[in-house]
Amino acid sequence: MTSAHVVLARRPQGAPVPEDFRLETRELPAPREGQLLVEVLFATANPGSRNRMGGDASYARGMRLGETMEGPAVGRVLVSNHPEWRQGDLVTGAFGWAERALSSGRGLRRIPARTPSLSAWAGILNLPGLTAYFGLRDVAGFKPGETLIVSSAAGPVGATAGQIARLMGGRAIGIASGAERKRWLLEEAGFAAVIDRSAPDLADALIAAAGEGGAQVYFDNVGGPVLDAAIRALGQRGRIVVSGQIADYNRPDGERSGTRRVHEFIGKRLRMEGMVVFDYAERFGEAEREIEGWIADGRLKFREHIVDGLAALPALFCAQLRGEIFGRALAKVAS
Amino acid sequence: MTSAHVVLARRPQGAPVPEDFRLETRELPAPREGQLLVEVLFATANPGSRNRMGGDASYARGMRLGETMEGPAVGRVLVSNHPEWRQGDLVTGAFGWAERALSSGRGLRRIPARTPSLSAWAGILNLPGLTAYFGLRDVAGFKPGETLIVSSAAGPVGATAGQIARLMGGRAIGIASGAERKRWLLEEAGFAAVIDRSAPDLADALIAAAGEGGAQVYFDNVGGPVLDAAIRALGQRGRIVVSGQIADYNRPDGERSGTRRVHEFIGKRLRMEGMVVFDYAERFGEAEREIEGWIADGRLKFREHIVDGLAALPALFCAQLRGEIFGRALAKVAS
Repeated sequence: MTSAHVVLARRPQGAPVPEDFRLETRELPAPREGQLLVEVLFATANPGSRNRMGGDASYARGMRLGETMEGPAVGRVLVSNHPEWRQGDLVTGAFGWAERALSSGRGLRRIPARTPSLSAWAGILNLPGLTAYFGLRDVAGFKPGETLIVSSAAGPVGATAGQIARLMGGRAIGIASGAERKRWLLEEAGFAAVIDRSAPDLADALIAAAGEGGAQVYFDNVGGPVLDAAIRALGQRGRIVVSGQIADYNRPDGERSGTRRVHEFIGKRLRMEGMVVFDYAERFGEAEREIEGWIADGRLKFREHIVDGLAALPALFCAQLRGEIFGRALAKVAS
Repeated sequence: MTSAHVVLARRPQGAPVPEDFRLETRELPAPREGQLLVEVLFATANPGSRNRMGGDASYARGMRLGETMEGPAVGRVLVSNHPEWRQGDLVTGAFGWAERALSSGRGLRRIPARTPSLSAWAGILNLPGLTAYFGLRDVAGFKPGETLIVSSAAGPVGATAGQIARLMGGRAIGIASGAERKRWLLEEAGFAAVIDRSAPDLADALIAAAGEGGAQVYFDNVGGPVLDAAIRALGQRGRIVVSGQIADYNRPDGERSGTRRVHEFIGKRLRMEGMVVFDYAERFGEAEREIEGWIADGRLKFREHIVDGLAALPALFCAQLRGEIFGRALAKVAS
């Protein structure tokens, strides 16, 4: 059986362009005993993948040229030679930018037959939502009554983190760009305040929005000057979750910005901690059930930007890294 | 009664110079009921004080012009109108760069009559040693078998942290400058390795010294490029204690270097936390008894650089910020 794949054709120089990718058709062998064949329904353009494309990686190994682009996906079992799966089962897994995929069943998660949204299993019910859930609760130890600052607030991680903060009895200040994102965050997602990322006085605006005593948690998806501004707005014993550093993904080693404000860590007793969501894999089910419940109740909102077909993913991925996509960036691969 | 004081005469532009200070004589009133009068035996040149001289401060308020320079000191009670103190008692307190000081007794700690070293109560048994003790054990959670990297390793905080790591069953890699410091750290203080701070390949040297899996803890006294190099040498779940940022003390806000390597926090799940030693004040006694025992047994070594008289403190302080002083920088004020 043939399968279309989008692969890494060359290593990006700075910001990726669509020419860094190539669409090709492969022949897949029939699934062996213990394997299953999945058809991909939704594939995702994951900004974190940028980090692996340079050849050196943050926590995962670097990509090889010609390798299928990675990313969580939603699929349906076409053929199963695996005792735990049946034809027609819905599943999420790291199938990447592919039309079809063979799997040993390892790392797959079952999507309940009655789910409030199938595509959500490629976003808010997948790595972005799980990152927000465990980052806020476990890494930051967010508590009722506290104030959260979150960057890339209109992205799937940020929007989910801010809403979970609100659902936990806290308050969220978002950093985002553009009137549409700001309106959605305030009116739909229940953020207490939204500050424009390019505001010249970003730190002052965050300090004013946080109010007396400052914010308690900053959920960092971007790094660089935005991280510096958030550090200024944190109060005593503030905690920073480092979830993404999108400002630095396109940059070579020597040009990364990091933070200039380590000196503030002393007086404010700040704590900054990095996270990899896979460390919480054993508790994904707990998080999925809680997030599904919030979605079903209408208390947790999410945005999606869905393009048609695998071939549209390179342009979508590049646009997302330029900050042009509002919502989880998905491609509908099969119906 | 008169008392000589060294005060802040003007705010330093960049690195402090002796002309930023002024020696003056003040008239002290007689101690009232509940007060005591102390004569200072040892005063200290504390690098962290630089941070308050600019007027804006990290955790303490900024200094006023004309204010006596701060710093922990060792003294002897001359007159006591306080029920808990008697004439002749030895005491440590924040008397600063002064010949004599009035005190309400608040924040004073008693020096045992039989102590292995009186001047040590202005150094290894005072804030530097306590910072090393609580930073390593409580903030970093250092455990037997782990490897510590410490910067300013020949300074009183760094040398104590490295030796406590060894006494806890771990191993210390020091970052320091100069052959004399290196010899002392290896031969006297029992460090496993010492890397020259100005080595062009500092990160590579630290990685090699840390060995497979990297180091577990970095005790940061300096910040900037040294912090970046240490981050590279940390392994999975490495912890960073931010105790001092001497590289940034002399710099205005926009020129601080911080760290460029926040992206490494994600993949290595690093944690960085700032500390203020006064948060552990209730447990100072526990630490002092343990450190005194180690000194008495000869298992914990310390270096002192002692000058004569208050008037020598400004030049000592400036030399220390230039990295020219090896050991705790003290002035002997009275005998």
